[in-house]
Amino acid sequence: MSEINELREYFAEIMRLNYISSLLNWDQEVNMMNYKSVDGRSKQLSLIRKLIHRRITSEKVGKLIKEAEKLSLNEIESAMLREITREYNLETKLPEKLVTEIAETSVLAAKDWQEARAKSDFSIFEKILEKTVDLQKERAERLGTHPDLYSTLIDLYEPGVTYNWIANIFNPLRPKLIDFVKKLNSSSDKPDGSIFKKHYDEDKQFELSRKIIEKLNFDFGYGRQDKVTHPFTTSLAALDVRITTRTTEPFPDCITSTIHEYGHAIYEMGIKKELHDTILCTGTSMGIHESQSRMWENTVGRSKEFWMYWYPTFQEYFPENLKNVPMEEFHRAINIVEPSFIRVNADEVTYGLHIILRFEIEKDLIEGKIQVNELPEIWNSKFEDLLGIVPPNYAQGVLQDVHWSSGYLGYFPTYFLGNLYSAQIYANASEKMPNLPDDYKKGEFSNLLSYLKENIHQHGAIYRANNLIKRVTGEDLNSNYFLKYIEEKFTPIYRL
Amino acid sequence: MSEINELREYFAEIMRLNYISSLLNWDQEVNMMNYKSVDGRSKQLSLIRKLIHRRITSEKVGKLIKEAEKLSLNEIESAMLREITREYNLETKLPEKLVTEIAETSVLAAKDWQEARAKSDFSIFEKILEKTVDLQKERAERLGTHPDLYSTLIDLYEPGVTYNWIANIFNPLRPKLIDFVKKLNSSSDKPDGSIFKKHYDEDKQFELSRKIIEKLNFDFGYGRQDKVTHPFTTSLAALDVRITTRTTEPFPDCITSTIHEYGHAIYEMGIKKELHDTILCTGTSMGIHESQSRMWENTVGRSKEFWMYWYPTFQEYFPENLKNVPMEEFHRAINIVEPSFIRVNADEVTYGLHIILRFEIEKDLIEGKIQVNELPEIWNSKFEDLLGIVPPNYAQGVLQDVHWSSGYLGYFPTYFLGNLYSAQIYANASEKMPNLPDDYKKGEFSNLLSYLKENIHQHGAIYRANNLIKRVTGEDLNSNYFLKYIEEKFTPIYRL
Repeated sequence: MSEINELREYFAEIMRLNYISSLLNWDQEVNMMNYKSVDGRSKQLSLIRKLIHRRITSEKVGKLIKEAEKLSLNEIESAMLREITREYNLETKLPEKLVTEIAETSVLAAKDWQEARAKSDFSIFEKILEKTVDLQKERAERLGTHPDLYSTLIDLYEPGVTYNWIANIFNPLRPKLIDFVKKLNSSSDKPDGSIFKKHYDEDKQFELSRKIIEKLNFDFGYGRQDKVTHPFTTSLAALDVRITTRTTEPFPDCITSTIHEYGHAIYEMGIKKELHDTILCTGTSMGIHESQSRMWENTVGRSKEFWMYWYPTFQEYFPENLKNVPMEEFHRAINIVEPSFIRVNADEVTYGLHIILRFEIEKDLIEGKIQVNELPEIWNSKFEDLLGIVPPNYAQGVLQDVHWSSGYLGYFPTYFLGNLYSAQIYANASEKMPNLPDDYKKGEFSNLLSYLKENIHQHGAIYRANNLIKRVTGEDLNSNYFLKYIEEKFTPIYRL
Repeated sequence: MSEINELREYFAEIMRLNYISSLLNWDQEVNMMNYKSVDGRSKQLSLIRKLIHRRITSEKVGKLIKEAEKLSLNEIESAMLREITREYNLETKLPEKLVTEIAETSVLAAKDWQEARAKSDFSIFEKILEKTVDLQKERAERLGTHPDLYSTLIDLYEPGVTYNWIANIFNPLRPKLIDFVKKLNSSSDKPDGSIFKKHYDEDKQFELSRKIIEKLNFDFGYGRQDKVTHPFTTSLAALDVRITTRTTEPFPDCITSTIHEYGHAIYEMGIKKELHDTILCTGTSMGIHESQSRMWENTVGRSKEFWMYWYPTFQEYFPENLKNVPMEEFHRAINIVEPSFIRVNADEVTYGLHIILRFEIEKDLIEGKIQVNELPEIWNSKFEDLLGIVPPNYAQGVLQDVHWSSGYLGYFPTYFLGNLYSAQIYANASEKMPNLPDDYKKGEFSNLLSYLKENIHQHGAIYRANNLIKRVTGEDLNSNYFLKYIEEKFTPIYRL
């Protein structure tokens, strides 16, 4: 057997262990919410992780990589070798002591962060966050993927991408977004969101969210939808992709977040069979993944045509709330653009500003230009610059996100990249299929899905994000598509 | 570290892999019912099994066992070494080829058996069953736990128990049970089961079954109850024990089978902390396990006092079916004794006859005294001897059970042993706590549970079944307790 095939087979076993680890997590989130102890489960998880680590870091892998590099490989094999090498480096370059320390610190940090957020007291989180930042800096130093530390961290989530590349995209967007938000809010005929202050039955919400993803061609023969507190998507096999839904207030969060998770899931479900059980059987980057979830959630799921199809059903389900509300008002209400404190509740336009805030702060933090104890103040002052408002407390400010406590520094930018990728890809799809909105009016979503499957999903991780976007759209990432999208969408909604 | 502690630690990891394998199975049964493919899951399962097999059969274990045998061990350590040695032998004495062949044959046999049963055509199953029997004979020969093959197979499920030992118990029971069934059915005032031909709402059934196990002190902080087609219990950690419930007709199967699974689960949940993550953290034999499930299902769950407490609630849930049915009639109806074809639906009295039938057939089959192709005829003729009726077809006769297709020869006797153990243990509990039935009237079940925890559950697999029953009751297994129990219970129900 050639070395690349040996690697393929060897990593098939690692993929299976990864899926098993995902099941252990999924089950804990979905089924063990009321458990008094997850001690047994934690031990099972660390055992599986240990087994995965041992396998990836075995001498055998190192040798096979060296041999495989000498072979003439086809496109898929090259991509496989690229990803295997990446994994090998990530796992071998870090000493076991550091890996353990990061894992242990993140458990403690999660606890401190929760308490700090509950009490809106940053000082509780400060010390462990300092340690977390130091550990991530050490991690980046040892990995050394890029000359600067922050790029190395970003690369963990968006392979191949650097700080400078992102800054070149985000920096010009910054003032344009600020201005656009101001412009919209100067309107004398803004949408009214008061219908979302009413109560919507949770079972009905769940039922509707299920109906929608069924119509969006989610195949329940290859996946599930379950209820949880924090929605997520996870793959337990190439053809076992599970999404989760929350039904907490405010409406229609349940609907939009379910469509969002659907977008992640349908990406994973669409990867071609040839890649199953290989290291390429996954989305190619967090940003591309997010482009899929956000395209379905926002571009499709908040479009007027989508609601022309669905709104009558919603009125039937919630007559007391919606009977007297015209579709157009509902559509405007789910597209309110307004500076707000919490990122996960932010609209499509202000969302980017929340990310730019974190991107700038992370950069300075990693480079030691700002210290952890300065974060609350810097957060608030930057927040005012970007969004024109100041968080009333730290819980709604610097303490709102779980990411830093988990050591995920460099992750945030991928969310906004997702919006940008999405706009560019969707513009391409619209060019090829100008009648997409007419599809939605009829409850027909398979043309868009086929396009995405053909151009993006099936390829799994064969092409890196920058490569993929060029293949699909003919050019590098270009934020003008996003700017054009929000302008064309929100100007009429705000009747400007 | 001493060798026994090394073994303990080494097997903690194996236990964790076992739990993971159980989760993979549980999730498949509970969550993947509508899946089009379980291919990914099958591969994950065989990977985990391979990892377990490799670990148990490693040279290291063999060496440690030899060294540990020289040590002076306490009671728990000795039991641990006994069970580890047993596992080691079971896994090392069989060549890999045989293990694989058994696994592959069981997959094919399951398929053929399903088709055969659906078509009630034994010939479809015959060939693969022949192979299954041959493989089990080879397995027994290689294991050589006992001089005769059937005892070696029985020992897999009821460690330490032989064919002769069981035959000495079953043989005298055979005529007594046949006579007792005839006696009951000679009554001129038999219970009437027509209320169970009515429809009972499935959601309400599930809700009631949950209420009951809550009252029986099932702790949902350490376990779950989910819906499936075939009920089972599984442990996913020392403190994560899950039961499953079906709500199919006829009522009250959902209730009694849930209490049955509860009995299995509460046994596993009660094992003392010291044994967690060790090889002893499990019920000690299938028979003792079944004694717990059947005690709760039948002795408690079909007692008059149990229903004095629960019946008013059931009447509230199903007024249309039960409003005009007095509790006594309901209690009599759930205790109907009647020869019937299907083992799993059999009552407490005829159940043993179903088992004796299989026990006798298995013995002759293993010894080559009968051939697979003779089974249908022998089944029917023996069935008539034991139960006085002849199955109308093979689906309701020789093809009804899944066990043989899985290669589980020697498993059946443990079910009836469970009834016998149960009666003897319960007689002891009643002697010590004569007021147990008064507890049930008040919906109070913790005194019986405490007794079982103290005397049986906490010890896990420290004591072998025969040893345990002697410790608890002061004597060896004695089937008179069972005979006395059924006589005292059913004579008044049948108004004789």
